[in-house]
Amino acid sequence: MNGTLQLADIEEAARRIAPYIARTPLLHSSSIDAQAGGRVHFKCENFQHVGAFKMRGAANAVFALDDATAARGVATHSSGNHGAALARAARLRGITCHVVVPEGANPVKVESIRRLGANIIECEATMRGREQALAEVVARTGAAVVHPYADYKVMAGQGTVAMELLDQLEQPPQVLLVPLGGGGLIAGCATAAKALQPGIRVIGVEPEGAADAAASFQAGKIVPVERPKTIADGLRATVGEPNLAIIRRHVDAIVTVPDAAIIAAMRLLFERLKIVVEPSAAVGLAALLEGKVTLDGGTAGVVLTGGNADLDRLPWMMENVQ
Amino acid sequence: MNGTLQLADIEEAARRIAPYIARTPLLHSSSIDAQAGGRVHFKCENFQHVGAFKMRGAANAVFALDDATAARGVATHSSGNHGAALARAARLRGITCHVVVPEGANPVKVESIRRLGANIIECEATMRGREQALAEVVARTGAAVVHPYADYKVMAGQGTVAMELLDQLEQPPQVLLVPLGGGGLIAGCATAAKALQPGIRVIGVEPEGAADAAASFQAGKIVPVERPKTIADGLRATVGEPNLAIIRRHVDAIVTVPDAAIIAAMRLLFERLKIVVEPSAAVGLAALLEGKVTLDGGTAGVVLTGGNADLDRLPWMMENVQ
Repeated sequence: MNGTLQLADIEEAARRIAPYIARTPLLHSSSIDAQAGGRVHFKCENFQHVGAFKMRGAANAVFALDDATAARGVATHSSGNHGAALARAARLRGITCHVVVPEGANPVKVESIRRLGANIIECEATMRGREQALAEVVARTGAAVVHPYADYKVMAGQGTVAMELLDQLEQPPQVLLVPLGGGGLIAGCATAAKALQPGIRVIGVEPEGAADAAASFQAGKIVPVERPKTIADGLRATVGEPNLAIIRRHVDAIVTVPDAAIIAAMRLLFERLKIVVEPSAAVGLAALLEGKVTLDGGTAGVVLTGGNADLDRLPWMMENVQ
Repeated sequence: MNGTLQLADIEEAARRIAPYIARTPLLHSSSIDAQAGGRVHFKCENFQHVGAFKMRGAANAVFALDDATAARGVATHSSGNHGAALARAARLRGITCHVVVPEGANPVKVESIRRLGANIIECEATMRGREQALAEVVARTGAAVVHPYADYKVMAGQGTVAMELLDQLEQPPQVLLVPLGGGGLIAGCATAAKALQPGIRVIGVEPEGAADAAASFQAGKIVPVERPKTIADGLRATVGEPNLAIIRRHVDAIVTVPDAAIIAAMRLLFERLKIVVEPSAAVGLAALLEGKVTLDGGTAGVVLTGGNADLDRLPWMMENVQ
């Protein structure tokens, strides 16, 4: 936790979380390859426990705690996949988990956090409301806060995605495309990938409507987007300080994609790979289909981050429904 | 082709088609297991080439032809997965394929058959119209007809699904649940499963609105359903004569499920397994969730037949859209 993240941390995470996570498959589709102009290997974290890569970071953070700290429980604020992942990790370790969720959060996701045994605390749907409610829980219980991305143990856990992907391929891909929200996944993945395959290009992909990391990458400091607006709800967070530092060290470029391209890519993954992914998972393929990243017959690894789509409101049907 | 189907035919099919088909994975979900009352292994033929198990039977039929016969091409009538499978198998062998499709067929499916290189012949949307158009093509070209299910080579190819499933499990399941339309899949699967694991129970599952096989099984002769009505469009066909004979020899029971249960099971497969399946694929899980088949802590193999769902009209959203 001393401000660096190295391959050894990710290797340690891989050993620590192995009993609690799934080794997810790589899939490909020759018709998608034809459209993308090269072979595309999709790393299917939509098949991960709780339906998202978040399980890796949460498990690493929870199982790295010493027994005395763990005994006081863990806490976070999240209305999405990190909350469910932390709840499951805590249950696996047999400790209490508190999740602060903003009012108006998706009831299906909140219910799934509750089903995983977490104590739910409702708060105002503002960042200040979340932080206040979390501070109160911590003051009351002494729980350890596990931040969704600005946490080195979480980043190390997420980095196992790239390590596993490289281990599953005989030839490493030339490019690794990673969705970018708060930057936990890409910080871990870029650290692992550059250490294992120095020649690989690591590219972050952001929605156009939440392109704070692209701006921050260029400016060299956090440039928040006031009101992020994108269908990719998992990528609305502002990039974290420690995440940005690692991204600037290891990531080659950040590209952005419009929501229409995200929706088209999501639909193509349903149609051709026959898998369910959430909008945030589709940004990597969107970048390929939009020509933001070109393969020229080469190969790419693309991380599909999660599969917790709202099946009653799939985005390509929205114009019909509304 | 002498009126019998044996394990050796299926083993021969497995060797013949190996280069042309995918060995599809088995998936499971602990939350589905809890609802079904036992461990359920799903055989994911939605990931098969052309998105359905039909590729197996079509490949076996096409590659079993002698060169002189093959040179005159193959033909069938189909508006669905068999047409696409036959088109792909013919293209792989480098021969012509004619597919008779009824007017008004789903344009997406017809387009995918065309993309696979088949010659499309439109006909009236009646069984007589289909048969007449097919007879004309055969008279004109000398093409070999590959029936979607009443064909021993097709049945042998489909039987490789069960052979593969049993090979992928260390312990064979107590029950094998197989969707039942024309009866090609279950004839092959029951023959393979009973030869390899005589103690296994093989159960066919039909939609209530197209329960001709259940009636025929009991009556000992074909009892067609005049106007089949079910969301499971792949299971509307009337069971074939040779299929029924094999089903009566090897299948333990046929159960039926209502469309509401099929839709609920389909949604659960999207939600928990994060995979795309078509309605016909969901009948096996529907039978478990409806209590038509009980596991009592045992294990089941369930064949998920295909993934070519209409993504613009997912059935659980229809009440919103219409």
